[in-house]
Amino acid sequence: MRIVILGSGNVAFHLAQAFSENKIGVSQIFGRNGKALKEISEHCNIPYSTDEMMDADLYIIAVKDDVTAEISRKIIKEDCLVAHTSGSLPKEILEGNYRKASFYPLQTFSKSKKLNYAEIPFFVEAENQEDQEVLKNLASQVSENVMDSDYEKRKYIHLTAVFACNFVNHLFARAKEISDGQQIPFSYFLPLIDETVQKIHEIDPKSAQTGPAVRNDERVLQLHEDLITSKEHLKIYKTVNDSIKKMYEL
Amino acid sequence: MRIVILGSGNVAFHLAQAFSENKIGVSQIFGRNGKALKEISEHCNIPYSTDEMMDADLYIIAVKDDVTAEISRKIIKEDCLVAHTSGSLPKEILEGNYRKASFYPLQTFSKSKKLNYAEIPFFVEAENQEDQEVLKNLASQVSENVMDSDYEKRKYIHLTAVFACNFVNHLFARAKEISDGQQIPFSYFLPLIDETVQKIHEIDPKSAQTGPAVRNDERVLQLHEDLITSKEHLKIYKTVNDSIKKMYEL
Repeated sequence: MRIVILGSGNVAFHLAQAFSENKIGVSQIFGRNGKALKEISEHCNIPYSTDEMMDADLYIIAVKDDVTAEISRKIIKEDCLVAHTSGSLPKEILEGNYRKASFYPLQTFSKSKKLNYAEIPFFVEAENQEDQEVLKNLASQVSENVMDSDYEKRKYIHLTAVFACNFVNHLFARAKEISDGQQIPFSYFLPLIDETVQKIHEIDPKSAQTGPAVRNDERVLQLHEDLITSKEHLKIYKTVNDSIKKMYEL
Repeated sequence: MRIVILGSGNVAFHLAQAFSENKIGVSQIFGRNGKALKEISEHCNIPYSTDEMMDADLYIIAVKDDVTAEISRKIIKEDCLVAHTSGSLPKEILEGNYRKASFYPLQTFSKSKKLNYAEIPFFVEAENQEDQEVLKNLASQVSENVMDSDYEKRKYIHLTAVFACNFVNHLFARAKEISDGQQIPFSYFLPLIDETVQKIHEIDPKSAQTGPAVRNDERVLQLHEDLITSKEHLKIYKTVNDSIKKMYEL
């Protein structure tokens, strides 16, 4: 199977690297950013081009959501499979007379970070059983967790990830504002954070909850509210504590 | 120095274990719950009692905030040092004619989990320089991160921990409600969560932010809001996204 990856961002980079590490041949990486393509090309030993797209059986579009449709129109071939990598787009966003699919790796990608691709879940959707099998087979060569998932399911996966990853990171950023304000190194909180995450590898997060809200400690809740000077911190503080109290029916 | 630990909960257990692992002698653990005390006693090879408190130079009160004052009254000796382990109490909560202190380990403790005590930060406060040194020296035998910290600072440390640990765990619990609703194993999200946390060991969480809010992706934000059926989820979703937009001035 001849594969072309379209895009030169973090997802394209990691897909190219994951395929290359698992001896899956990629014919070409194609895109607009010659400099970024060249980097991936040299790193993964895959040809690249900014103007001539190679003929392939599978095109994987790994670009930002808002340019996925535009890029998909560049594929004029009809007898081929085209998959995008977005968690929040239907496969019908792809505009062409080819067979459409989604090939969604659930991970947060930064270019420089080494990743263990084997543990990254892939969610796959295609128009027919055969294409579905092709994509699942491909994903299985990289990852141990491959799952069928239509657009509806994918939306919920993405939403879960927003809570468990994007929002969690934002809480870290807000927490760091508080500790920075007191000249306490944020690194002091990393063992606590690591332990918090380690715990949910073993027990249900609902059972792992600690802190003033879940023990209904009004004194500490009030003490914290008095301490907080930022309007944004206070809004988060109250909203999350309310949500904790609701969850445990306090 | 003769040390007595008061309490039989998770903090008492881990302090006893940390001291015992580092060959710091503890004369006794004292409390009301004989069964729990007996367990710690056998595990750490430290005598225990529910009715007769031993004479000591340092008493460490590791009990819940709301019973700390009550327990502190049980120490009638005057020429001794008494420290509580709470992040959200002043040392003046201790009621006795002894010298008062705070000895606060920053970690979330569950009884069964093995912990690397060397990386747990200890925050220490006493009435005078000599006691301060005694407690810092004690903490340093357990941990590599020991810091002076008065009540004011301790409150902020605790508040930071609530954001970075308690709130983060609650987001995991809420996220799991979403994935459970779609029969997607929550374990699929663990590599993503691990990576999110791994990232902030290396880069500032503010620079690590990803997701629809930080890229001002109104389509996905709207799509998610339409998807969410729980009032609590929606309140968190809107509050945190607003906070992200404010942080990046979007």
